[in-house]
Formats: sequence, C-alpha cells, structure tokens
Amino acid sequence: METSAAASPEAFLAMLAGIVGASQVLTREEDVARHVSDWRRRYPGRARAVVRPANTQEVSRVVAACAAHGVPIVPQGGNTGLVGGSTPDASGTEVVLSLSRMNAVRSVDPLDGSLTLEAGCTVLAAQEAAAAAGRLFPLSLASEGSATIGGVLSTNAGGEQVLRYGNARDLALGLEVVLPDGRILEALTALRKDNTGYDLKHLFIGGEGTLGVITAATFKLFAPPRKVATAWVAVRDPQAAVELLARLTGAVGERVTAFELIGREALSQVLAHAGPGMRNPLADAPAWAVLFDVSEASARLDPTPAVEEVLGAAMDDGLVADAVLAATGAQAHALWALREHVPEAQRLDGPSIKHDISVAVSRIPAFIAEADAALQALMPGIRICCFGHVGDGNLHYNQSKPAGMADADFLAREDAVHDAVHAIAARLQGSISAEHGIGRLKQSALLHHKPAVALDLMARIKQAVDPANLFNPGRLLPRDRLSSHQEPSR
Amino acid sequence: METSAAASPEAFLAMLAGIVGASQVLTREEDVARHVSDWRRRYPGRARAVVRPANTQEVSRVVAACAAHGVPIVPQGGNTGLVGGSTPDASGTEVVLSLSRMNAVRSVDPLDGSLTLEAGCTVLAAQEAAAAAGRLFPLSLASEGSATIGGVLSTNAGGEQVLRYGNARDLALGLEVVLPDGRILEALTALRKDNTGYDLKHLFIGGEGTLGVITAATFKLFAPPRKVATAWVAVRDPQAAVELLARLTGAVGERVTAFELIGREALSQVLAHAGPGMRNPLADAPAWAVLFDVSEASARLDPTPAVEEVLGAAMDDGLVADAVLAATGAQAHALWALREHVPEAQRLDGPSIKHDISVAVSRIPAFIAEADAALQALMPGIRICCFGHVGDGNLHYNQSKPAGMADADFLAREDAVHDAVHAIAARLQGSISAEHGIGRLKQSALLHHKPAVALDLMARIKQAVDPANLFNPGRLLPRDRLSSHQEPSR
Repeated sequence: METSAAASPEAFLAMLAGIVGASQVLTREEDVARHVSDWRRRYPGRARAVVRPANTQEVSRVVAACAAHGVPIVPQGGNTGLVGGSTPDASGTEVVLSLSRMNAVRSVDPLDGSLTLEAGCTVLAAQEAAAAAGRLFPLSLASEGSATIGGVLSTNAGGEQVLRYGNARDLALGLEVVLPDGRILEALTALRKDNTGYDLKHLFIGGEGTLGVITAATFKLFAPPRKVATAWVAVRDPQAAVELLARLTGAVGERVTAFELIGREALSQVLAHAGPGMRNPLADAPAWAVLFDVSEASARLDPTPAVEEVLGAAMDDGLVADAVLAATGAQAHALWALREHVPEAQRLDGPSIKHDISVAVSRIPAFIAEADAALQALMPGIRICCFGHVGDGNLHYNQSKPAGMADADFLAREDAVHDAVHAIAARLQGSISAEHGIGRLKQSALLHHKPAVALDLMARIKQAVDPANLFNPGRLLPRDRLSSHQEPSR
Repeated sequence: METSAAASPEAFLAMLAGIVGASQVLTREEDVARHVSDWRRRYPGRARAVVRPANTQEVSRVVAACAAHGVPIVPQGGNTGLVGGSTPDASGTEVVLSLSRMNAVRSVDPLDGSLTLEAGCTVLAAQEAAAAAGRLFPLSLASEGSATIGGVLSTNAGGEQVLRYGNARDLALGLEVVLPDGRILEALTALRKDNTGYDLKHLFIGGEGTLGVITAATFKLFAPPRKVATAWVAVRDPQAAVELLARLTGAVGERVTAFELIGREALSQVLAHAGPGMRNPLADAPAWAVLFDVSEASARLDPTPAVEEVLGAAMDDGLVADAVLAATGAQAHALWALREHVPEAQRLDGPSIKHDISVAVSRIPAFIAEADAALQALMPGIRICCFGHVGDGNLHYNQSKPAGMADADFLAREDAVHDAVHAIAARLQGSISAEHGIGRLKQSALLHHKPAVALDLMARIKQAVDPANLFNPGRLLPRDRLSSHQEPSR
C-alpha cells in the first residue's frame, strides 16, 4: 500500500512513477495536450499528470495512491465524448488516468459467444476480434476507430444498430472495475444468468467514470449477418415513418437492424456539401426520408421479398411515396454515406445547435411538431436539421441559423433553444440525453428535468461508492448535490 | 405524512387501515395463511399483518407509516419463489405488503412495442395483454399463472426463452418504485435510450425487494413467432450439445429461442412417471437429449430447411445420433411436455436435492463431468437428474437418492452435496444461483462464493438506499453484513 502521509507534488508524481514507470507519467505540455482537452475544444483543462498504467494491478495501485493523497482522478479512454466528461478541469489538480496502454484482447470464445477485452481496446478492435472468430460485435459508431471499450461502457454508447442489438449496456456480460479506494471488483463473467445479488455492473455502465474505472469487460457476440436489405424510402411524414417501422417489425421481427429518419433540411445540407458520389437516391427531395437495414444471419433465407411486400402495402396506403432498395453492397454503402455525412455537412453549413433527445417511438411525431413550432416562434426562419435513430426514439434534433443571421446572434440564443427543446422532450416524458450522457455540458438540464427523487438516489449511490468524491468529481452530478442525503430522508 | 410517534400495535394497524381500508389489513390466521409461508412450506412465518394497497399512493403511505414506526416490510407478489425471499420470518413483527390488488394493465402500445403493467399482474396476464395487441411478451415460466410482474422483476426471473429474449431485466424499459422512506421513484419510461445518470432500475431488478418495492413496470414487446421448428435430438454428449448450439446459432442467428439439455436419468424419471401420451420420441433412450426451438417472425420465411441442414451435418460429424423434428404444433407440444414434466417426475420419484447453477456455455461439459465425479465419490450410486437451459449455461443439476437408500440418510447429506456442486460451479467461474436468487436459502453459499469486494459494495448500496434496513431485512444480504462498510474502506 502507498503511504497516506502528505506528499509534495513532486513526491506524489515520483510515487506514481514508481508504480507505472517514469515514462508513463506525462506532464510536459506537448505530451498531455491531447488528454487535457476534449476534441471539440470546448473544455480546455490542465492535469497534474496523465498516468498510463499497463495493467489492472497498476490501475489499482495508482488509484489507491490518489485516494491516499486525496487526488481526484479523471478516467479517460479515446476522449471522443461530447459532453466534457473525460478531461480534467482547469485546476491542474486532477490526474488523468488513461487506459490507452491496456488494449489487449484477453479472449474470444465462439462457443460462449463471448469476447473479453481490456478497457483501452478500440471499438473497431473489438469488431475485428469478433469477426476473426466468425462472430459479430454489434456496437458500431462514427468514432469507432478511436472510442474505447471503457469509454463506450462508461457512457453506455448507442450507435446505429441499437434497435436490434441494444446499447453498450445490453451487450456487456461482465466487468472488471477498480473502485475509488483501489480495490478490484472482479465481475468479469461470461455468464448469461447470475442472480446472486444486485447486478453491480449496471452502476458502472453509464456511470461516466464517477464510481470507479472499468479496466476490462466481457461482451456477448452474435451471428454475423449474411444478407442485408437496405432501403431509402420517402415517407409521408414522421407518423408514417413510425407506422412503417411497426409494420416492418411485424413482418420480419427483430431483423430490423437500423431505422433512421432524415428530414429535408438534413438531406439538403448533405447534398449542398456533398462528398464524392453523393446524390439524392430518389427523383424528388422528400420532406422526410427513412433509411433502414433488415439483416439476416442465415445464408438460406432472404428477407427481401418480405421487405418489398411491406413497402408495397405502405405505398398503397399512402405512408410511402417512393422507395429504392439497394441492389448491391456498394449501393447500400452509398445510401448510408448520405446519413453519415449529416453532421459533417451541418458543420460545413455553419454554426449549429445540437440536441440528443429521446421519446417513446410513438411520440416522435408529436415531438417534432411541437419542437418545430416552438423554435420557429422563438427564432423565425431557424433551419431545423432533424435526423436520427427513430427506431430507438432518439433524434439528433439540430438547428442551423436562419438565412442572413450573424453567427454570434444565433449562438447567443443557444441556451434558449436548448431550453425550449428539452422542455418539450421532458413534457413528452422523454430524455434530454439519449446517448451522449451528462458530463459537464448537460448538468443544468439534468437538474431541471430529472425527478428530485432520482437525483437524490444517484447522490446516495455516489456517496456510498466514492465517499471522498475523487472519481470524476463535478461530472454527471454537480458537487453541490452530494451532501443533501446526509439530512434525514423525510 | 403519518406521525412518527410511537404507537401501540393496535394503533399501528388502525393507521394502516386508515390508508388502505380495514378490509385490506389481514390478520386472521385463515386470511394470512397463504401469505406467511412459501408454497413449498420450507419457511413457515408469522406476520404483524398482510396489507393490500390498491394503488401506488397507498403503497407510498403504507411504507412511510412503517418507516416512521420502524416496522419491517416484506413485499410479496405471487409468492412462487423458491428461496424464502417473499414471506415473513417467525418474529411476527414484519408487515407483508401484498401487491395482489394492483393488477391493472395500464397501457399497451404496438407502435412503441411497449406494455405498462402494475406489479400485481400475473405473467400470464402480461402475455395475454401483449397478444391482444399483436405482440409478444416473451417471459414464460412454469409458474406464470401465479407469478407476478413485481416478483419476476425483483428476482430477475429467467424461464424458457432467455436465450433469445433475455431475462426479466433485459425486458424492462422502466419502473415505478416506492423507496424505503415512502417516496415514489418515477422512472416508468418507455424510452429505448436514456443516458441521464445511473440507470437506477437495475438496482431494484434482481434486488429481491431489499431496496424498495416495484409498483409498476414498462416492458419491451416483440414480434410474435409465426413458425416454430421444434426438434428432439440425441446428442453424443454435453460437448456435442454445446457445439450443436453454436452451429445452429451460426446458421439461423438469434432465432434459436430455447435450447434445453435432458440427461438420461431425467428422461427415465419422466417416462417412469409419465403423464398421458408421454413417450420416448426416439427409438433408443439416449444418454443426452437436446430439445430446441427455432422461431421465425416472418410468415414468408421458413427456417426448417436451415435447421435440417445443421442436423444433417451434425449427424455426419458424429455430434448427433438421431433426431426428430415436430411436424405439427401438437407434436412440438408433446416434446416440450417431456421437458416440463421433469420436476414433477422427480418429485414422484422421491426426495431430491436441487441446484440452479450457471457457467459459461462452453464450460457446461466440464461442469457436468467434474460434478458427476465428485458426487459419485461422495455418495456412490447417487442418481443425477441433469437438465436445463444449456443455451444460457444454466443447469438444474439435481439429485435423487441411490437405489435402496433411506430418504433421511439421503437428505442428511444435502449440505455436503450442495457444497460439492457449488464449489465446482465457483471454480469454473460460475454462479450458485442462476435464476432463483438468494433469499434466505442460499445466503451461506453467497457468502462463501461471492467476492468480498462485491459483498461490500452490495452492503454499501443497501445502506445507502435503505439505511434503517426495513425492506426485506435478512434476505439476500445477512443482517451481520450490513455494518462492515462503516469501517475505513482500506
């Protein structure tokens, strides 16, 4: 055990160097630069040091040393987050605990359908390890080449195949976690069933590094798809999109792997700032388009005729105006490129205000109608770039400025726009952060919209697991929410 | 709020009657009998009263009154549990909080694919409500006519379709919970994605009523199967069963809905105590049989040829000796009747010792080989009735006495048999309770096999949420485990 006596800053760093080696305690500006600010540079920070342990035992010893000296820790994976949850604050007191060196694939077992990885593995590496064993690791997101297993678990990342396979939470079978006092929670199980007490892994998944640091995880794997039917469909309106999803699910079951909505403004921006080969798949530019995948694991079965039947009936019933089914993998790829280009096109268009809301799937149409009306009243001419994972009830409901407005005038209204959108999501019993988390960015919205009982329970959990508030302090739950439960509870 | 002044037992009951009505506070022996003992009569108890609130507000007020007077509460659903978790102890001080009157289906939404029910609804009622909306509520277990939604969530029940659809935990989208101080946690969401802080529902799911009482829940629904291929297969050994599962999953993906192993002794007992129409489906009695379902949601697609191809190749490779595919629903039903009759046949055979272990699927063969050898060494001639959900790595690995042994001699060795079996499951990194939970029955095994760090974390959570230890005290975590974390944690 490290000593708990007070140590000078230099002595403390020497102690860390004694655990991980001097070369793995980074303090020079050029070495720490990519670790102390988020990639969007919204949260520039400073770190006491960036420490890169090589294994779980070293993580445990680093954490114990920090605990003994009251030094706060910011766990960090690929640092691809959007809410300021994985970088140090400006105080220069926090240690960044980077998992980047812990990137081993510990095991893959096709019979169990399981994959065990260290936290610093990228999502892409996980996909590749599964594919090499003839299985599918279904988590897939834009940042998968950089985002790490520890990060996607700590933020319960979603991505484009949640509809079929679930969020990161749903894919995890077991975790190994270093707790805020340095002890190791060994729960790295490949069990499909285990009812021996509270399922502790769910505290750390989506916990944003505030309750401990995930050092390894075991995931479920799936049968890889052998055929995928990809369609781009002009739908009458968002209600038609929701009804089409229900019909499709009724006809082919859980094969519906992704179901995305793309509004006219989003497609216009993509076509205005198109990458190579990007063009409108249909003759007209629809007010609303849907892009979906239906995937099939069996080489002997083809879901395409069932999909065509659903689309034909939906045309007859006026839900669908036009549709194209990709005939080749390249065509499917081109359709998906349009969808994936939306964020970049919006960036090229100019400043944007972004949301990541969710509501129950059936309330998507009401959300869009109400939010559109509220924002047009707030800022006439505002351009609404609406797209997202309708199958999950999750929209990236973003805004670009009205034609002719100055950037600064638009961004000066950002909080008012957020408030209007979040209020509607909340009134429809939705979420103000469907997949990006809270971090530092969304704390005020969290405090405003989360029920007080839930906030109190979260604070109690945090204080039970990290009583000194040393793990990612001030992220997720603001510091001032952490003493309320000391009072009598009624 | 109820007063917190001390009250006589009579005054306290009158206070409860003031909340729920005098007719819903049961104290007469004939009224409370079915509530104070488990159905196997292993845990006869006494209750201060059985209270039956009509709605969540009444639950909240009852719980607040109990909290104010320091009265412990035992939440109770259908009282179908196997581990003594839902009945009062012998002290006569505990109030049984029965959810039996809260059995409304609040809503079913085919577009969301969601179903919201009160906790006292039976599993069967949930299945029926979903079916009426053209959807599937996939939780299915032997006690579904009595087991309630609150109970299956509190115990994270499994059942026969976990392989495809998951445990109760995986099916729940949101919960409404009354906390130990009487406050209501409103988290009754149909959201598929919500990353606004710790996912609190996972504390209560599988929490065995020790952290609060679930009053309502929202579940995911699925597309109902339109075709099911059911097969009874003689396999070479358990390793062949595991390999057949991997081949089947590779060929037809997540359509494999159930995959059960039945050992020779289990089938022999079924045939010896057969119900009407039960017979061996194959010419010979195999050492090991597998029963599986492959189900298909699309009316246009038939997975049977793919299943036949897998079985043919497995025969060629020596994994499978013989197989029969059900040609009709009635035949499929007859095959499943054999599997479902195993527990009753074992009861008719005489006394039994039961286990509910799980290991990673790939370790099923090693578990069976090691446990068989250990038990034959411990008690030569012991008959091992091994069956269960191999697709989930979950075996009901049960024992019947050796021919000629007295019942009492056999049962006198029960603890030794448990210890031997649990030690092997633990050494293979398995679970000593895959789906039945801990309750009072499995506490000593929990303390023996669960890592100390996990036990400590569970105790911290319990004390954070229920500091007075009034919710199901002494179940799951023994009372004496609840003060350890007050010490410095290192």
